[in-house]
Amino acid sequence: MHSLQQMASDARQAALNLAVTDIETRNAALLRITESLYDHREEIFMANHLDLQQAEEEKLAAPMKLRLAFHDKKLSQVIRGIQELITMPDPLGMTTLSRELANGLNLYRVTCPIGVIGVVFESRPDALVQISGLALKSGNAVILKGGREALRTNTALCNAIHEAGVSAGIHPQFIQLLTSREEVADMLKQDSLIDLIIPRGSNAFVRYIKENSLIPVLGHADGICHVYVDEDADTEMAMNICMDSKMQNVSVCNAMETLLVHERVAAQFLPEMARRFNARGVRLLGDHETVQLIHCEEATEKDWMTEYLDATLSIRIVPSIEEAIRHINHYGSHHTDCIVTENQVHAALFLQAVDSAGVYHNCSTRFADGYVYGFGAEVGIATGKIHARGPMGMEGLTSYKYKLLGHGQTMDQVVRGQITYTHRELHDICPE
Amino acid sequence: MHSLQQMASDARQAALNLAVTDIETRNAALLRITESLYDHREEIFMANHLDLQQAEEEKLAAPMKLRLAFHDKKLSQVIRGIQELITMPDPLGMTTLSRELANGLNLYRVTCPIGVIGVVFESRPDALVQISGLALKSGNAVILKGGREALRTNTALCNAIHEAGVSAGIHPQFIQLLTSREEVADMLKQDSLIDLIIPRGSNAFVRYIKENSLIPVLGHADGICHVYVDEDADTEMAMNICMDSKMQNVSVCNAMETLLVHERVAAQFLPEMARRFNARGVRLLGDHETVQLIHCEEATEKDWMTEYLDATLSIRIVPSIEEAIRHINHYGSHHTDCIVTENQVHAALFLQAVDSAGVYHNCSTRFADGYVYGFGAEVGIATGKIHARGPMGMEGLTSYKYKLLGHGQTMDQVVRGQITYTHRELHDICPE
Repeated sequence: MHSLQQMASDARQAALNLAVTDIETRNAALLRITESLYDHREEIFMANHLDLQQAEEEKLAAPMKLRLAFHDKKLSQVIRGIQELITMPDPLGMTTLSRELANGLNLYRVTCPIGVIGVVFESRPDALVQISGLALKSGNAVILKGGREALRTNTALCNAIHEAGVSAGIHPQFIQLLTSREEVADMLKQDSLIDLIIPRGSNAFVRYIKENSLIPVLGHADGICHVYVDEDADTEMAMNICMDSKMQNVSVCNAMETLLVHERVAAQFLPEMARRFNARGVRLLGDHETVQLIHCEEATEKDWMTEYLDATLSIRIVPSIEEAIRHINHYGSHHTDCIVTENQVHAALFLQAVDSAGVYHNCSTRFADGYVYGFGAEVGIATGKIHARGPMGMEGLTSYKYKLLGHGQTMDQVVRGQITYTHRELHDICPE
Repeated sequence: MHSLQQMASDARQAALNLAVTDIETRNAALLRITESLYDHREEIFMANHLDLQQAEEEKLAAPMKLRLAFHDKKLSQVIRGIQELITMPDPLGMTTLSRELANGLNLYRVTCPIGVIGVVFESRPDALVQISGLALKSGNAVILKGGREALRTNTALCNAIHEAGVSAGIHPQFIQLLTSREEVADMLKQDSLIDLIIPRGSNAFVRYIKENSLIPVLGHADGICHVYVDEDADTEMAMNICMDSKMQNVSVCNAMETLLVHERVAAQFLPEMARRFNARGVRLLGDHETVQLIHCEEATEKDWMTEYLDATLSIRIVPSIEEAIRHINHYGSHHTDCIVTENQVHAALFLQAVDSAGVYHNCSTRFADGYVYGFGAEVGIATGKIHARGPMGMEGLTSYKYKLLGHGQTMDQVVRGQITYTHRELHDICPE
């Protein structure tokens, strides 16, 4: 059993090694992983069977068991996901700025991996495959910790991926799996070796991670998403979007938790909307104005800050779009918020003023997802504004470095007036 | 006197307000600031005179007094800096991704401000003007804390900037100045209101900030920069670059602290290089091989990890470029490192494998600077790999949001097969 410091140090070595691999090597390894996952399917399914059996014995909730299950269809899905990653362009070595600073002194900004990334994820074992695929494609080493209930499945998946990567010439420590909570606590201390932590879990868990580590943390705590039905909304469209945002999947972070309705359309919109929600078994809570219009409990201040993650919805009637924006910026979690309106001026105002990773016009909040956005997959959804925001795909797993190419230029020459800054854009790619 | 929470909450309001300002308003405010700084020059110079007088009484070190001085020439410099910022394009509202997700469902990634940024900077009062200019141009509200010794100067500068911004219609709390260390401690607790902290100071200070806040921190602690003289280096060029990197300004973060020399050229290179360094009064420390070649003290393990910030240099002879890279990645601070070589293969390997914000070929490490890179100015230099890396100009002060524009699309339609993802690149700018 290795110490966490040794594991992190090994991961750092793997990361330095991955940073100089070419895309052919990384794609070949990804291809080998798809084959290995298929070759090892029986072991993976058996491991999952045992995890599910234990989940049964421990009487885990039905949705959790559903997420834990890893069967033939899930295997095909994750394999297809990696195949898609292979077809995507190399996120590394891309020149994103090229500028002549002075005659013969050229600056290039070139994308590179972040390095070592620690990911703590929930019970879905398919997340392990997605995350390690994205990390490998973007040249990062990962240290993973999955849910306790999925340990056998995750171990089997990790073994298959590890074997394939090594056989394709990738540094053996490109992927490492932690198995205990204590290891996570130890991992958080390795701030000189680990570059980024991505926690996927409850608000309390994310806060625990942030409070106990100097390593930068990206991800999200709450997903308190809003739909605002504007005075100029198409009523039928608004009802469809609200129903989908709330009920298409209630237990996900991009589901709607609070519905805001403009007061001019509330009397016309809310009774029918409530009828439809009632028919789907949604528990409704409303502000003082709402309870005059429809039959529901009165919401408290706390409800505006609650991520229900179930078939519960809080509703507020607002006097203006400005108040809707104010409510979202104040109570929301900066995840994904939608305006339903036919008024382009209102839409543009909402999209600019709402301070969230996703600002939507006339579509369901459920679209906030890396796969949907065309990123192939996602390692998480970031609600902060540093580094990556929204679904984090490969781009969110890259950094960059500045390459400066000269012919002996010194600052002393600048001071003496022998070199003058030109700052001319070059529009070429970095030659070295 | 406001509480820090109130100040941070005010800054958040200012930030939400700045996020919806257009570039004309922000540029007009910057122009007003240049005028205001000039109009208030007598007050500013008088305040600086008092600060310098006190520095004299408190017997501050000469370099510190030099950095503290704010005279006519400094004023012209900062005004010219802001004038340059005005000519630069708007960093906000830029579409950096546009993609059709499905028929009539278009995704745009659009740049936006980060929000509220806390900056703790050292004694140079010109930094205050640079930082507030960059923040305003990029739509961010700032809370600033300068050095105690520059308090009067910073207050006068801040007043001039504040007056100008307000008269140009910017939200009054776009810039706020803290005056005590206790306020910094309080600021670090406002993680729900402040988006980013940029500390500029000692290693210990940056660590203190990280340990005492949940707010993301960007910047750098050490600047342990290396020059590696390769076996295929042009000797005269190497000597010039080494002298400039070490001696052009010894007290800055982008000065060389460790010189690495390939063993094949050490005997030819080091004696003459040492002679030149000795002539400039540089104290030399060398590894075991180096002390056989030149007269100097023997370096200890600790020297490879020390940022001298004075006329001291540690020297090591390495058997290969691989060992030079290993040394830099192990002992360096990921700031700026240079290879001197005429061998393109060696250069390319070094630039790819060295894990630093700046990787230079044949030029002085002293060029690591936001103004030199053409960013107008910088708020700091980031040595981490999250968000911004290297000199942070306006781009480092922006985030982005995803705008999704639809016509009522729901996830339910996707599940039913009524909507198919197309993921077609659009190459247009966001219309809303």
